Amino acid sequence: MPLTLRHLAEQLKLEFEGDADLCLTGVASLANARSGDLCFLQHEKYLRDIDGSDCSALILSDKIDSIEIDRAILISSNPQLSFAQAIALVCPDRINRMVMGIHPSAQIAESVILGEGVSVGALCTIGEGVVIGAGSQIGAGCVIEDRVRIGDRCLLHANVVIGSDGFGLVEDNQQWVKVPQIGSVVLGNDVEIGANTTVDRGALDDTVIEDGCKLDNLIQVAHNVRIGAHTAIAACVGIAGSAIIGRNCKIGGAAVVLGHLSIVDNVMVTAMSLVTKDIKNPGVYSSGTPLMENSEWHKNNARYKSLDKLARTVTRLDKLVAESDNQ
Amino acid sequence: MPLTLRHLAEQLKLEFEGDADLCLTGVASLANARSGDLCFLQHEKYLRDIDGSDCSALILSDKIDSIEIDRAILISSNPQLSFAQAIALVCPDRINRMVMGIHPSAQIAESVILGEGVSVGALCTIGEGVVIGAGSQIGAGCVIEDRVRIGDRCLLHANVVIGSDGFGLVEDNQQWVKVPQIGSVVLGNDVEIGANTTVDRGALDDTVIEDGCKLDNLIQVAHNVRIGAHTAIAACVGIAGSAIIGRNCKIGGAAVVLGHLSIVDNVMVTAMSLVTKDIKNPGVYSSGTPLMENSEWHKNNARYKSLDKLARTVTRLDKLVAESDNQ
Amino acid sequence: MPLTLRHLAEQLKLEFEGDADLCLTGVASLANARSGDLCFLQHEKYLRDIDGSDCSALILSDKIDSIEIDRAILISSNPQLSFAQAIALVCPDRINRMVMGIHPSAQIAESVILGEGVSVGALCTIGEGVVIGAGSQIGAGCVIEDRVRIGDRCLLHANVVIGSDGFGLVEDNQQWVKVPQIGSVVLGNDVEIGANTTVDRGALDDTVIEDGCKLDNLIQVAHNVRIGAHTAIAACVGIAGSAIIGRNCKIGGAAVVLGHLSIVDNVMVTAMSLVTKDIKNPGVYSSGTPLMENSEWHKNNARYKSLDKLARTVTRLDKLVAESDNQ
Repeated sequence: MPLTLRHLAEQLKLEFEGDADLCLTGVASLANARSGDLCFLQHEKYLRDIDGSDCSALILSDKIDSIEIDRAILISSNPQLSFAQAIALVCPDRINRMVMGIHPSAQIAESVILGEGVSVGALCTIGEGVVIGAGSQIGAGCVIEDRVRIGDRCLLHANVVIGSDGFGLVEDNQQWVKVPQIGSVVLGNDVEIGANTTVDRGALDDTVIEDGCKLDNLIQVAHNVRIGAHTAIAACVGIAGSAIIGRNCKIGGAAVVLGHLSIVDNVMVTAMSLVTKDIKNPGVYSSGTPLMENSEWHKNNARYKSLDKLARTVTRLDKLVAESDNQ
Repeated sequence: MPLTLRHLAEQLKLEFEGDADLCLTGVASLANARSGDLCFLQHEKYLRDIDGSDCSALILSDKIDSIEIDRAILISSNPQLSFAQAIALVCPDRINRMVMGIHPSAQIAESVILGEGVSVGALCTIGEGVVIGAGSQIGAGCVIEDRVRIGDRCLLHANVVIGSDGFGLVEDNQQWVKVPQIGSVVLGNDVEIGANTTVDRGALDDTVIEDGCKLDNLIQVAHNVRIGAHTAIAACVGIAGSAIIGRNCKIGGAAVVLGHLSIVDNVMVTAMSLVTKDIKNPGVYSSGTPLMENSEWHKNNARYKSLDKLARTVTRLDKLVAESDNQ
Repeated sequence: MPLTLRHLAEQLKLEFEGDADLCLTGVASLANARSGDLCFLQHEKYLRDIDGSDCSALILSDKIDSIEIDRAILISSNPQLSFAQAIALVCPDRINRMVMGIHPSAQIAESVILGEGVSVGALCTIGEGVVIGAGSQIGAGCVIEDRVRIGDRCLLHANVVIGSDGFGLVEDNQQWVKVPQIGSVVLGNDVEIGANTTVDRGALDDTVIEDGCKLDNLIQVAHNVRIGAHTAIAACVGIAGSAIIGRNCKIGGAAVVLGHLSIVDNVMVTAMSLVTKDIKNPGVYSSGTPLMENSEWHKNNARYKSLDKLARTVTRLDKLVAESDNQ
């Protein structure tokens, strides 16, 4: 049964303007919306896009004047959030039901403890002594190794590996000897882990990802890393052993955090940055160089190799000029 | 039955010189060839390598004078292409038959539609409503999530994930709320996807990879990315959400393309570059710094932190010197 | 039966000081140790941490004076190595038994040859003609494609792919034609490969990883790469086609090695470096720029785009000043 504007407004606890009985049958972007679709508008600059859209209703920021908008509207202080909530109400069938129930092809060890409503996807492997909290969903093809503990309402996407051995090696006479990795991995509640991401077990103590952390695809979390609550990490990031990342941090895609260092709470690291030292103050941090035409890049790179020498020359010249001024 | 030089030439539509009845029993690199083997030679600079090789025949560029070559030859305007075609004729048994038919261990939802001659490898998971076109091959351990559409003659290598949720989050009171990802993924025809690569489903609209795109291993394609036809992407690349990449582009290994930007057709981005802005003109683009001995690198990096200050000093000195010249 | 200090010392061939009958019941880091636990101490600077620890015994470097330490001690020239060996003796139950025996859910082709004591994890796929040497362990969800050869005592973690097709393409009229990949992959003895790492088969010849190499998670090894014995590679590294890496090298996390180049033995490449040319001498190499506050980074990056011009200005000024000095 399609939802009316009034019912949606009630469930989202938003005020609305327009025909209370309007039926909402779908959600879409402004560009692709059809009649019956709900969209959202966060920024005033997109107001002009409404004219070209066939959408029937909009979730609108309460900072935007709605007077000239000829659609039904719902008014929200956080339109993106309200829209996220609306999707589950307007078109529950379109949500990716990654997994439902325990798939019979999953290989689950006898000693595993699954909380209420846990789903385990096709062809998962879950090792001895694993504990998974209520409502968590484990995607197809995941491997959860022995003694890993996963909190409530966690969401692991396909082919994730949790609890693989950390990269612990000792050199002995020019060869590598493996250090047995006897720690485990602990995921808090409401943690989301993207496809093909790997989280290694700790060497002695545990690797820990606290409540509400969100990790994208193809991320490496090494042994004994600790990630503070509500930190979000974009795809392709690598976090080396024993790094400690604070709460509410945002780590951009393909950034690398070296081992045995600390990042305080509320730090943002932009994409592809390399963190080589502790970050002691909240703020935004970056490294890398800008994209250039290849020919320019070659020229500038050639100079980078002697940047120190260049700086010394400038210092010398500066001194010479200052002296000649003083004469 | 081994192939003769004459038969191979006929099938590849190439002219040949030498014994038409010569049996070709294998293919190899010049260095490792044995009697009976076919090799290829693209560049004149490798001509001298023929002497040390035991190969019996060569596919030779039509730009190279064959007069002094004492082997059977096939003459091609694109020797590497002819050689690629020859492999399937000379030694079909050595081609990696990744998958053949539908492996009984694959977990395929009831509503899946498979075209003629589709192969699905061992231990794949294919979700509800997935459509896979004729002749496509899905490698072992792949996870294809609900409603993904894959064109004809596509080749997905092992452990690929297509249709995992995009990394869609809204901040609410210092916590993250998941935005349901209700778009899907559409792969065109003749798309190849490397092992352990991930392609996320779109948030509202679809993620699209057009005809003839070739993606290597361990690549991340985020939600709502659009990759134009015949673009090739090397391993370990990350493409952030809603990036649009043109046709016939080449993205080097471990490059990163940020979200919500556009790259026109015929752009080449070299390895490990970071694309932070639109690329509006065809050409070759790069970022990053050259490899140095670690001690030099430390010195130059220290200077990079004050490059802006250095540049200001140079500007000031330049002005001072110009003024003193004018006096 | 718990181990006594005397027995442990005998088995590790170390001298000890303290109560020979002391029972050792666990291993731990100094910070988390409880009574009965064994720890290790490599560097003098951690000596003061002993006071706050409840550990009962320590493996101590023979370079540290033990006179003031009030715990049982074992004296070693390589405490970390001795500790790694001790773990298996003190708490064998806590070692991650990744796989034991051949899991019935593994899909193993008929022609596979498994050496004595090989373990194959749940839901692995092993293709035709694969040979795996004695004592090797293949983690859950791995895909080992046709004709791959794996030596003795190798350890492959979960979801590893060995023998996927290399990224071999020829351009033909603005489209890509696949080059069949008919080489294979050869892993030596005692090779360890981390979770979700991919190793592609060679185009014509084999991809080779020699004895004792250790690869971390999410690494890409392209076709025809050759990695010398006892080289260690950290997570997220990409190695492009036909690169040759020497023996006893150390490649830092997320570094990239371009194709068709050579690195000699005993080279260390630091994290996130880009190797674009041969490395002909042992040593430590790096590239990249330091992490900065985002506002500083923007300023310095703007200057980097005209670094060559800046250097030319400095050269000109230097010349001018030298000339005016000579007048």
